[in-house]
Amino acid sequence: MATITVGLVQHHCTPERNDNIARSLDGIRQAAAQGAELVVLQELHCAPYFCQTEDSNNFDLGESIPGPATETFGELARELGLVIVLSLFEKRTAGLYHNTAVVLEKDGSIAGCYRKMHIPDDPGYYEKFYFTPGDLGFTPIVTSVGTLGVLVCWDQWYPEAARLMALAGADLLLYPTAIGFDPNDSAAEQQRQRDAWITIQRSHAIANGLPVIAVNRSGFEADPSQVTAGARFWGSSFVAGCQGEIRAQASDANDEVVCVTLDLQRTEQVRRIWPFLRDRRIDAYADMTKRFIR
Amino acid sequence: MATITVGLVQHHCTPERNDNIARSLDGIRQAAAQGAELVVLQELHCAPYFCQTEDSNNFDLGESIPGPATETFGELARELGLVIVLSLFEKRTAGLYHNTAVVLEKDGSIAGCYRKMHIPDDPGYYEKFYFTPGDLGFTPIVTSVGTLGVLVCWDQWYPEAARLMALAGADLLLYPTAIGFDPNDSAAEQQRQRDAWITIQRSHAIANGLPVIAVNRSGFEADPSQVTAGARFWGSSFVAGCQGEIRAQASDANDEVVCVTLDLQRTEQVRRIWPFLRDRRIDAYADMTKRFIR
Repeated sequence: MATITVGLVQHHCTPERNDNIARSLDGIRQAAAQGAELVVLQELHCAPYFCQTEDSNNFDLGESIPGPATETFGELARELGLVIVLSLFEKRTAGLYHNTAVVLEKDGSIAGCYRKMHIPDDPGYYEKFYFTPGDLGFTPIVTSVGTLGVLVCWDQWYPEAARLMALAGADLLLYPTAIGFDPNDSAAEQQRQRDAWITIQRSHAIANGLPVIAVNRSGFEADPSQVTAGARFWGSSFVAGCQGEIRAQASDANDEVVCVTLDLQRTEQVRRIWPFLRDRRIDAYADMTKRFIR
Repeated sequence: MATITVGLVQHHCTPERNDNIARSLDGIRQAAAQGAELVVLQELHCAPYFCQTEDSNNFDLGESIPGPATETFGELARELGLVIVLSLFEKRTAGLYHNTAVVLEKDGSIAGCYRKMHIPDDPGYYEKFYFTPGDLGFTPIVTSVGTLGVLVCWDQWYPEAARLMALAGADLLLYPTAIGFDPNDSAAEQQRQRDAWITIQRSHAIANGLPVIAVNRSGFEADPSQVTAGARFWGSSFVAGCQGEIRAQASDANDEVVCVTLDLQRTEQVRRIWPFLRDRRIDAYADMTKRFIR
């Protein structure tokens, strides 16, 4: 397993679940046709980004794991013989929901789950209303194509999450995400936000000597409550190599499938010239578990 | 104190200590003339980058703190009424040396020190031979122009260091550094390294909502041992704003003074839209103090 071809499936979503799933399935087939052995979908790919409002009816969108989505995508994983990373609105029990990534093995079985640990909440992204913070920790998922450090969206702003996945043996860092422009923000502010989103994820590649794969949704979604101007999801899905270099990047607006072949030996090579793990001052990091030090 | 003007002094070094100090003093005066209230010098600015070889005679370059350099630069701090960040080869006692940043107050007194915590060691950068790892922790230094999170070079690759400074109340993150191209590396590798160096430091600004100031030496320095092709220090000193945006950047080759005025209210504004500190999963970060988790 010296190399792996990864596929990123970026698309817009509509209120029609079946249409969204069809777009994802089609993207996976396109990626497989280009040789992908691992395909990553965007955050909450079965639905519009319903967290634009706090509406308790949206809990109807939750589903069990295993459940309908793992069955549908599991069939395709088995048919095509590839590993797929899903991002689902998990209904764990009545009144207990998570934002959960599911990794499907080549035989369609569930290799493991990651429940989003860091939950955002700001105007238009009311996730604390919907998602209980994850309780599975930062545990990478072992698959036939490598050990996957799956994280989700808001996690991408936290170097702690990437580091803990790396320390737990991740070969790759994967981020299904759903982040967009506020149409009312200035062009300069929009550019700073998108640049920051790319930069911080590239930095996780650099700090840990691992490839990073980020898959973001595209397209405009109106705010059902009409309080905000809606969200224009900025796409821009990308793959960064072990030195943070951009290997491929999708557009900021369209449905796209991006495939990149990664040399898994690069981590060993890069960590030899940049042996950051060697020199961590673990004797001096205890305060990382504090909220604030003063 | 709504704004602060920071000055970055980037220059080449020669074996002549007095010439190096003259270049630093001149740069500080230039920065002061442009309104700087805080001036940051590059790593080990009094000397050539002597860590290219392991030579015990180089311990002669060590000096006490307080000592000759704090006296010389302290006089200028007092004359110009500004805060200066020095980077010195500290001789603490016989056989005990550190790579130490010293912050001088406007009256020339020593506001505080930071001893480089992460010490590199790779061909051409034999710092483990010279520098005992710091024992002052990640403690920001309180000054009349703000609370300074001073870190040094190799520290810049560690998100833990930046985070701990932020959690301890730093208003700014400052990195005196000395990093260069191996002339034998390909142009592509050189570009990846420099980009990674910029990207990871921008990411500290983003993750913590703080401005980052990096000051790197410039110029070519031959390897006295003639084992390697020497180091071409890549300059490129820069200031990043609280969203990681580049506010100013020096060239990759010349002696330069860069001044930028920062709005210290930006941290409050940016942390309101990106409240990353709010959502840290401190219940799940305990393994940050482990070397590896498997």
